[in-house]
Amino acid sequence: MPYIHLPEDLPGIRGAMAFRPETAKPLNDLVEVLLHQPHTLTAGERELIATYVSYLNDCYYCQTIHGAIAAASLHDDEELVKRVKADFRHAAISEKLKALLVIASKVQKGGKHVTAEDVEAARREGATDLEIHDTVLIAAAFCMYNRYVDGLGTWQPRDEAMYRERGKRIARDGYVTVSKEYLPIEAATPSSFQD
Amino acid sequence: MPYIHLPEDLPGIRGAMAFRPETAKPLNDLVEVLLHQPHTLTAGERELIATYVSYLNDCYYCQTIHGAIAAASLHDDEELVKRVKADFRHAAISEKLKALLVIASKVQKGGKHVTAEDVEAARREGATDLEIHDTVLIAAAFCMYNRYVDGLGTWQPRDEAMYRERGKRIARDGYVTVSKEYLPIEAATPSSFQD
Repeated sequence: MPYIHLPEDLPGIRGAMAFRPETAKPLNDLVEVLLHQPHTLTAGERELIATYVSYLNDCYYCQTIHGAIAAASLHDDEELVKRVKADFRHAAISEKLKALLVIASKVQKGGKHVTAEDVEAARREGATDLEIHDTVLIAAAFCMYNRYVDGLGTWQPRDEAMYRERGKRIARDGYVTVSKEYLPIEAATPSSFQD
Repeated sequence: MPYIHLPEDLPGIRGAMAFRPETAKPLNDLVEVLLHQPHTLTAGERELIATYVSYLNDCYYCQTIHGAIAAASLHDDEELVKRVKADFRHAAISEKLKALLVIASKVQKGGKHVTAEDVEAARREGATDLEIHDTVLIAAAFCMYNRYVDGLGTWQPRDEAMYRERGKRIARDGYVTVSKEYLPIEAATPSSFQD
């Protein structure tokens, strides 16, 4: 049972977001830019980074929903998602993505674990500054989302079909659009108070 | 030296935000809601939570700038900020804030470290659901900001006067307003692409 009174029918981060739409808006906007908007890394690659960090942080809800979005973005290849979590160094992914996953796993431990050598190794495989930046921020952001979801003791049903179905919709429509289903009232952005 | 090419004159998170304004916008909006907008916890109390988590994560830039904002919000009481970092249980802060700092320190280790007893203890001191929610999210968010700042190897000058001066301005004007100095171009929000 969640530690605070969250809407009962919304699992994981969705209950927490419905409880506090003012913070849900920037949380959704951030993940939309990082994982869904057009990018030189595919959505599938970026979702694999998010899934792997959530797996390292042992967050069931996040690793399952982002694993489902990753699979939906990768021609429904659920086996590849499992393989990346178990042993990404021997998974059928690019050498560049492997080097970025090394950086992400260091960020998960703490920012200071990343070394110039880790970044150089990614660059040798063709990673750009933007790809390195976004890998660091995706990994850092999931250290937030995972803690948010588990730190409030949210409801995390063990219903694989639910995650799979929802994963397909988020892969297709993105976070901001899908989240409108349970965040019907558009929260005002802080900047709108300032302008 | 940063691991990627960031603007040279902007320390800490500011260089990273100027490099990627599309993610800077939700990152600034989130911290504005959590730490600066009106709340039942004072800005000083919320900045102390952010400072303490950044201290636990050993992020020099974040603990120094948020420590400065906290002090500016607490009648320039820099000693109190130091005391909270060193031993908050014996600092001159409310029992409610002490209980919230316990929750924040658990979130810093990982979301699953928070217990129902930690939350009950905060509730006994008068903490509301919103205050507990925001404490969890502030602590989780600084596990992101700290990793972002250190994971990119950003420039973090040891110039206390700079942090003190900037802390006063952010305490007065907020994050979104002050960040416009180095983020002159308002990044489009993801939702504006959708609507």
